Amino acid sequence: MSGLSRATVARLPRYLRLIEDTNGANDMVSSDALAAAAGVNAANVRRDLSDLGFQGTRGVGYSAPALRDRIRRELGIEQRRKVAIVGAGNLGSALARYSGLSKRGFDVAAIYDIDSDRIGKLVGDVKIQDFDEMPSDCSFGCFDMAILAVPATAAQSVSDDLVGAGIASILNFAPVRVTVPDSVAVRQVDLSTELQILSYYG
Amino acid sequence: MSGLSRATVARLPRYLRLIEDTNGANDMVSSDALAAAAGVNAANVRRDLSDLGFQGTRGVGYSAPALRDRIRRELGIEQRRKVAIVGAGNLGSALARYSGLSKRGFDVAAIYDIDSDRIGKLVGDVKIQDFDEMPSDCSFGCFDMAILAVPATAAQSVSDDLVGAGIASILNFAPVRVTVPDSVAVRQVDLSTELQILSYYG
Repeated sequence: MSGLSRATVARLPRYLRLIEDTNGANDMVSSDALAAAAGVNAANVRRDLSDLGFQGTRGVGYSAPALRDRIRRELGIEQRRKVAIVGAGNLGSALARYSGLSKRGFDVAAIYDIDSDRIGKLVGDVKIQDFDEMPSDCSFGCFDMAILAVPATAAQSVSDDLVGAGIASILNFAPVRVTVPDSVAVRQVDLSTELQILSYYG
Repeated sequence: MSGLSRATVARLPRYLRLIEDTNGANDMVSSDALAAAAGVNAANVRRDLSDLGFQGTRGVGYSAPALRDRIRRELGIEQRRKVAIVGAGNLGSALARYSGLSKRGFDVAAIYDIDSDRIGKLVGDVKIQDFDEMPSDCSFGCFDMAILAVPATAAQSVSDDLVGAGIASILNFAPVRVTVPDSVAVRQVDLSTELQILSYYG
C-alpha cells in the first residue's frame, strides 16, 4: 500500500469505472473525461495519477488499459475478491443479489445468519450458513472481506468474531460504529449521511 | 444554499453525528473531537466551520447545540424530511426498516412498487403502494425526496417519472447512473466503490 491521500483513494474507483464502462482495450482516456467521472477538475486527476506514478501524454491522454490495470493493482483487486455477507435479512439478501458487486470484481462466497429459519435457504445461488461455521470457512480461505448487514445491537459482537477469525476488511452497514484493532480496515456505510448530503443539494 | 465545497458538505453530517450522539444540550465540542469524527485534521474543521460563518472560542471549542442547529439548517434538515422509497424488493424493504433513517430525521412516507404481488403488503408500518399513485402523492406533498431501489434496467425510467412528478432529490442505489436535469440533485450510492476503497486499506 502506498501513501495515497484518502481523497485520491476514493476517486480511483470512479476513474476505474469510467474506463471499464466506456473504454475499449486500446483507447486513450483524457484527464477531462476522468475529471468528469470523479466530479473534480483535470488538475486533480493529473495530481492523483502522478501520485500513482502513472504518466500520460500531453494532448493525447492516458492509456486506458494500462491505467485500468494500474488502478486495479493499487486497489488490490487485480484478482476477484471473495466476500462474506453476515446477516441474511433484507439488506444482506439485497447485497447478495446486487449485480454491481460481481460486475466490479467481488464474489459473494458465503452468507451467514444465526436464525435457524434462514439457515439452509438459498439467496440467489448461495446457501445461508450458520454463523458458527464462519471461523472455519475463513481459515480455509473462503473469503477475506466481510460485509456486516446485521442489526445495530449485534454489530460489535459480529465484528469481534470476524476479526477473531482473521478478517482484516469489514464494510459495515449497521447504523452504529464498530471498534476494531488498528490492523483492521472498516468502512462505515451510513445511508442517512447520504440523505443529509443530498438534502443540501436538493 | 451557500457555496460550500463538496468536501465540506460531506463532512457536515459527520460533525452533526458526533454532536447528536455524544453532546448534551449545553456542552462545548472541540475541533479535535470534530476532526476525529470526520477523519480530518483540526485545521480542516476550523476552515469548514469558518466557511459556515460559525465561530468558536479559542481554547474552549464550539457550542455544541448552536453548531448542531447551524449544520441542520445548512443541510436543510431543521425539520424532519419525508422520503419515498421506490422498489419494495429486498433493498427497498431493508431501507424502509433501516432505523438509522428515522434516527437522523428522515421519515419513510411511502414505498412504491409495480408488482401486484407486493402492492398492499406492509413493510414495517408502511403499506406498499402502486407506483402509478406516486405522482398524485407527490403533488400532495407527501414527500420531497426519493430513494431508488429498483433494478438497473428500471432506474432511468423511474427517475424520469420522479423528476416529472416534481422530485428534486434522488438517492440512487441502482448500479447504474441516471441522467437528470441540472435542477435535480442525484447521489449515487455504489456499494462496489465502497468495497474497492476498503480493499485498498484492508
